[in-house]
Amino acid sequence: MKIGLLGLGNVAEGILSILKDNHKLLQARTGESFEVKSALVRNLEKAQEKAPSSLKLTAQASDILEDPKIDIVIEVMGGEEPALTYIKTALKNKKHVITANKAIIAQHRPELLKLAQENNVQLLFEASVAGGIPIIRTLTIGYAANHIHSLYGILNGTTNYILTNMEREEKEYPQILKNAQKLGFAEADPTMDISGLDAAYKLIILAGVAFHTTINLEDIYYEGIDNITLKDITYAKDLGYKIKLLAIGKTNPTIFKVHPTLIPISHPLAGIDNEFNAIFIDGNAVGESMLVGKGAGALPTGSAIVSDLIEIALTPKKQIPFIEDKTAKLSPIEKTYSQFYIRLTVADKVGTLEKITGLLSKQTISLSKLFQKEKTKNTAEIVMITHVVQESHMKTTIANLIVLPEIIEAPVVIRVGLEEPTA
Amino acid sequence: MKIGLLGLGNVAEGILSILKDNHKLLQARTGESFEVKSALVRNLEKAQEKAPSSLKLTAQASDILEDPKIDIVIEVMGGEEPALTYIKTALKNKKHVITANKAIIAQHRPELLKLAQENNVQLLFEASVAGGIPIIRTLTIGYAANHIHSLYGILNGTTNYILTNMEREEKEYPQILKNAQKLGFAEADPTMDISGLDAAYKLIILAGVAFHTTINLEDIYYEGIDNITLKDITYAKDLGYKIKLLAIGKTNPTIFKVHPTLIPISHPLAGIDNEFNAIFIDGNAVGESMLVGKGAGALPTGSAIVSDLIEIALTPKKQIPFIEDKTAKLSPIEKTYSQFYIRLTVADKVGTLEKITGLLSKQTISLSKLFQKEKTKNTAEIVMITHVVQESHMKTTIANLIVLPEIIEAPVVIRVGLEEPTA
Repeated sequence: MKIGLLGLGNVAEGILSILKDNHKLLQARTGESFEVKSALVRNLEKAQEKAPSSLKLTAQASDILEDPKIDIVIEVMGGEEPALTYIKTALKNKKHVITANKAIIAQHRPELLKLAQENNVQLLFEASVAGGIPIIRTLTIGYAANHIHSLYGILNGTTNYILTNMEREEKEYPQILKNAQKLGFAEADPTMDISGLDAAYKLIILAGVAFHTTINLEDIYYEGIDNITLKDITYAKDLGYKIKLLAIGKTNPTIFKVHPTLIPISHPLAGIDNEFNAIFIDGNAVGESMLVGKGAGALPTGSAIVSDLIEIALTPKKQIPFIEDKTAKLSPIEKTYSQFYIRLTVADKVGTLEKITGLLSKQTISLSKLFQKEKTKNTAEIVMITHVVQESHMKTTIANLIVLPEIIEAPVVIRVGLEEPTA
Repeated sequence: MKIGLLGLGNVAEGILSILKDNHKLLQARTGESFEVKSALVRNLEKAQEKAPSSLKLTAQASDILEDPKIDIVIEVMGGEEPALTYIKTALKNKKHVITANKAIIAQHRPELLKLAQENNVQLLFEASVAGGIPIIRTLTIGYAANHIHSLYGILNGTTNYILTNMEREEKEYPQILKNAQKLGFAEADPTMDISGLDAAYKLIILAGVAFHTTINLEDIYYEGIDNITLKDITYAKDLGYKIKLLAIGKTNPTIFKVHPTLIPISHPLAGIDNEFNAIFIDGNAVGESMLVGKGAGALPTGSAIVSDLIEIALTPKKQIPFIEDKTAKLSPIEKTYSQFYIRLTVADKVGTLEKITGLLSKQTISLSKLFQKEKTKNTAEIVMITHVVQESHMKTTIANLIVLPEIIEAPVVIRVGLEEPTA
């Protein structure tokens, strides 16, 4: 089978190296041999330096998209346009398409799947979520006998690496980010990872595959890790929790959101460290399960893309019936329930704690854990874990707390736990 | 698609309940509807009490195997014969076969796959290893781009449940086994689980799928958990380890074995408790990954079997090329390397420790950890973790230790760790 590559960056190099190093194995396992015929690049000269000589390079997308000899187009150029147009053209030209592009799949999955089906070809995107974890395939076949109740994911390796190493090296976020950038675990511009947007895209893809639900990017709540401090990681640890950037998807009520979360240390997701990703799934037949692997990197992502190649080679005519997505009625974040971690810096004087707990009681918020620590001679820190409470009540409480003269710094508020009972 | 069931026990009930409860979802996801037409039972009268009225019951296998209307035969009767003959007949009669039978797949996989291929049908066995984990599919497609370097599995839920609860309830093996039997986590005759044989069968299946290697049951080393005491679990914990029944598969050198193992608490496999199974995989592209789920039970196993149904419905003509297995040259257990945990009960007198360490040194065994504890007034316990050593050296050492007059009880020896460097 002949392949055209759109893009020749890291991931493309990973694909080329897997196809070369594991050539014999792939031929044995599929009965096919794969040949990357040509690659679309931006800068021909620069690309020529590193590309294998057998690979035809072009700066013209049509050289690949219109080449009748190419069976499969692999899109690894990233970005939304022109990648989206190229994918559509390839499908219309009856080429199978494999993509790692989470932004495109998150926003255009149903329309692209339909287009693929109309043209009797496949659109596969295993690499778009958690490269080293075969999550798309597992949801599509392995767990397809199940109604999925809920799904919790550590879907962003960069933020997980940063949170892990803030704790291990006892350093603040900016220093660890700098190290991560040096080591290649964070991009030069890390906004997409740090802000939670990357995880939100991936959660939207999983919502489609696991729940047949379309979620618009503007409707999903996401919050990043840039406000997490070493102090809160340490206090969380003292209380028996780890802080992770968690993507949460569940039905009844329909909740899809991404935010830093205190996870009980005994939960398997709490043990997922560094650049690893994990997805914890609860299905009505299979029960609880978890898949763990590297979320990014040329080889893990390349491995996922080559697994899509293998699937096309084994079943070129496979057509998974197109299921029309439901449009999700997302519970607005204010209406969802959670436990909360709250850290307050207060004036250390008589009656302060009473005032605070009074405000909490007024919003029917009760406490599961509390400790107070001297901070300076005249100030103290109060750290609390609440019982489950509606977000709107917490919001009101924080607004009421902030105006107290005893509260010296802006309160730190982080959600706790994996379960969100509805009342 | 019409289905014939061979057997109508727990797992069959799980399948029937999934097909009923998730009927709409399955139809949407496959475009097919599945109808279980008939079931082979041993005792017609007894079966009629619990079977749905639409299901035709028979005591004659030929009613299913020769029924031209049946497309797929699901074998969940267990045992080797007549199940094996029935599977072969079904394949010859051009029916797809799905089986959960680990003993049959472990011993006849290549011949059955060949037979399926000759008859243009599929033989699928996702449920034969770790029901709730899509491990066969992940190795066949998801990680098929990879050379697998090594694979470590907690593959038996019964023994994992027992080990977990010995530690949690601080009770010895026989008591916990009795509880497990009451709760349905252990069979009335638990020999197959406890002895490690069940895990060995599953490891043989994984060896075939991941490494394309045939291993004969008589060649594989397996050891059960019946000698593990609460004391050793506690000492292991003090030293930073958990004891798990671990199935190990690796190449270079080729090692396949099952035995209780002290796993460092920081390793993700150490956190897999109760009836859960897990498989930790190291592939040359994907790196390290782990899959976790329930290993047994009617619904998790049923979920795996229905995933095979889904695959057949989506790709009835799929033919995975048959790869001739290598015959493994297994390193005999004496030639493999490991760290060891040793617990000795000794007479508490001057010079004992020196004598013991002298014997160890003679076999070039050095120690990583050691502690001594008073046991009674006149006896002490010495607990050691060795560095990596060849099994044969350890065997000689133990033989030499046993004859020392200072050694009061038979030494307890348990392997340690996940890595087994060759020197």
